[in-house]
Amino acid sequence: MSNAFTSLNPNPRVLMGPGPSNVHPRVLQAMARPTVGHLDPWFQDFMEDLKALIRMALRTDNALTFPVSGPGSAGMETCFVNLVEPGDKVVIAINGVFGGRMAENVANAGGVPVPVEFPWGQPVDPNVVEDTLKANPDAKVFAFVHAETSTGVRSDAETLSKLAHAHDCLVVMDAVTSVAGIPVEIDAWEIDAVYTGTQKCLSAPPGLSPVSFSERAAETVRNRMEPVRSWFLDLTKVMGYWDGTGGRSYHHTAPVNALYGLHEALVMLSEEGIENSWARHAAMHERLKAGLEGVGLGLLVDEPYRLPQMNAVTVPDGVDEAAVRKTALETYDLEIGAGLGQLGGKIWRVGLMGQTAHPQAVTICTQAFADAMGKD
Amino acid sequence: MSNAFTSLNPNPRVLMGPGPSNVHPRVLQAMARPTVGHLDPWFQDFMEDLKALIRMALRTDNALTFPVSGPGSAGMETCFVNLVEPGDKVVIAINGVFGGRMAENVANAGGVPVPVEFPWGQPVDPNVVEDTLKANPDAKVFAFVHAETSTGVRSDAETLSKLAHAHDCLVVMDAVTSVAGIPVEIDAWEIDAVYTGTQKCLSAPPGLSPVSFSERAAETVRNRMEPVRSWFLDLTKVMGYWDGTGGRSYHHTAPVNALYGLHEALVMLSEEGIENSWARHAAMHERLKAGLEGVGLGLLVDEPYRLPQMNAVTVPDGVDEAAVRKTALETYDLEIGAGLGQLGGKIWRVGLMGQTAHPQAVTICTQAFADAMGKD
Repeated sequence: MSNAFTSLNPNPRVLMGPGPSNVHPRVLQAMARPTVGHLDPWFQDFMEDLKALIRMALRTDNALTFPVSGPGSAGMETCFVNLVEPGDKVVIAINGVFGGRMAENVANAGGVPVPVEFPWGQPVDPNVVEDTLKANPDAKVFAFVHAETSTGVRSDAETLSKLAHAHDCLVVMDAVTSVAGIPVEIDAWEIDAVYTGTQKCLSAPPGLSPVSFSERAAETVRNRMEPVRSWFLDLTKVMGYWDGTGGRSYHHTAPVNALYGLHEALVMLSEEGIENSWARHAAMHERLKAGLEGVGLGLLVDEPYRLPQMNAVTVPDGVDEAAVRKTALETYDLEIGAGLGQLGGKIWRVGLMGQTAHPQAVTICTQAFADAMGKD
Repeated sequence: MSNAFTSLNPNPRVLMGPGPSNVHPRVLQAMARPTVGHLDPWFQDFMEDLKALIRMALRTDNALTFPVSGPGSAGMETCFVNLVEPGDKVVIAINGVFGGRMAENVANAGGVPVPVEFPWGQPVDPNVVEDTLKANPDAKVFAFVHAETSTGVRSDAETLSKLAHAHDCLVVMDAVTSVAGIPVEIDAWEIDAVYTGTQKCLSAPPGLSPVSFSERAAETVRNRMEPVRSWFLDLTKVMGYWDGTGGRSYHHTAPVNALYGLHEALVMLSEEGIENSWARHAAMHERLKAGLEGVGLGLLVDEPYRLPQMNAVTVPDGVDEAAVRKTALETYDLEIGAGLGQLGGKIWRVGLMGQTAHPQAVTICTQAFADAMGKD
């Protein structure tokens, strides 16, 4: 019988979009190690190591820290579906695509989202948040995006968290793009629930979402009046497997090999040192910015709020942004991201995340933009 | 700085539990190929190939066929959270752990589960189902597990599906353990929604759940009155990415490398031919059964309902079932599964799934049981 299907052979790309970022061969090879059972004694020890590594990356001692068996969207949903009960009010700062998704998640969980909108490309303004919290004294949760992947903006997580606590709210933070790229201090900032992704500054393949919950947040989940609206993401069930203090009770089959990859990526981060990773991202951003300025391109976001790892590059008038991306892919095997939502067509999103935060990538990207702008 | 974390080195095991099963090196190496972006033009073509391969494995032409970015539990939830609206009545046949989970999923989605219970180790009895369907003429969905992983029982999917259609119900089937191990005919049996897993007879690592929906089921989702209670699993959103007929709109970042692994496993299945895969599972079951009989062990399930790929082996009186599993793991690097739920301590679950359905594995397993039973 002839067979139409053949093995795959993806061309290596330089991944400078909004994620995934480049994955180191060490991580790819870790994923190719032998699959073992999710209840294997060796794997149970491995799970404890992995939780410790995630705590290192998030700078937390939270007991309830583990990787959700799905991408960042599953991590986001884990936070909201567990913390929010029907009727709960959640104040959500929205300054890009991902804040908007938080509001949809809250509604799905039966909660009442109270959106606070900010212009895209601007950070969340704590004064406006404070006014909203004052006007909603019954709000249970405040949620915001630390590093908006859609705009390249960093908001002041510590200030926002302390403000929300002063108004007796639990704090949920999206740290998908921030972790390992800029300082993230879950315990020092007193974040109650955080979700992140593997395919950004951690440089593992996409598909998992490390999350962490403070004791206060864990207590809130334990004291729910109504059942969690998801079986797959129900923390009261999942933790019987990941907690492990009372043996591992089977919930779902863990994505064993994907977890190997995340482990290796975190081992590499621990070898580099997380402060060195932050510094590397900052330095590569400066290098990229200089290169872009040299070919006449500027950044959307004002300097104090710029994410080094996610650069929103303004598309000049008269330039076909899609054509530039297409040419970069065809010429250099270089992926650059498009704008999302209301910024579609107006910006390129240039990621410098994880392994991609490297002089090689910056050089290739700068040359691709130089070609596009007719500069040599 | 000294570094407490080191790369991992799992010992290869022979995986004869309830999944994961052994993963072929071709599949492991496929997962280690370069990560590309989830919107890369090459990846978009790859996605179409992958959908075609899943259709091959499920024997369906359903347009709405794709791998959910999470394990089987996420696939189960995808079926129920999309098809069930608050107040919808769902008749669920329960003859093991996984039928019970279906009922919990229906309740999470706001539906009203109508459980029909059968003894564990027995198949679903169509006559009892018919009585329940007659007594519940307003039921919208009928759900059952084709191959109960917790008991090793096969139910008669075709009869159950046609019966449910005669009572105007949509049919949801759990095919996690059946696909590629025994005949599964989604179109011929007129199954409306099916979910499966990668880590059973497909022999890819755990973490993904191929699903497929009939046009009637897709129409039901499109015509919902209330929003889907999950953002991550909402088909009306996910399909903007996987459908691809109108371009790929970003929903979540696909688990790129895990999808490479599933693709390679399905390519291997297409090379073998699915009928040959069914026959191989049946032959290895016969070989195992003969070996077990030779050392005085029997099977829980009556012959007509036995799953070749999931053997519930009765633990003889006076035998410490956990000690047998521990010794097998330590001596032969052989994983055997424990009983689940009410069958805990009463059976071993011996998987012969995918790559594990091989004379090597059968021989090792038979010897381990011979050791345990004091036979040579």
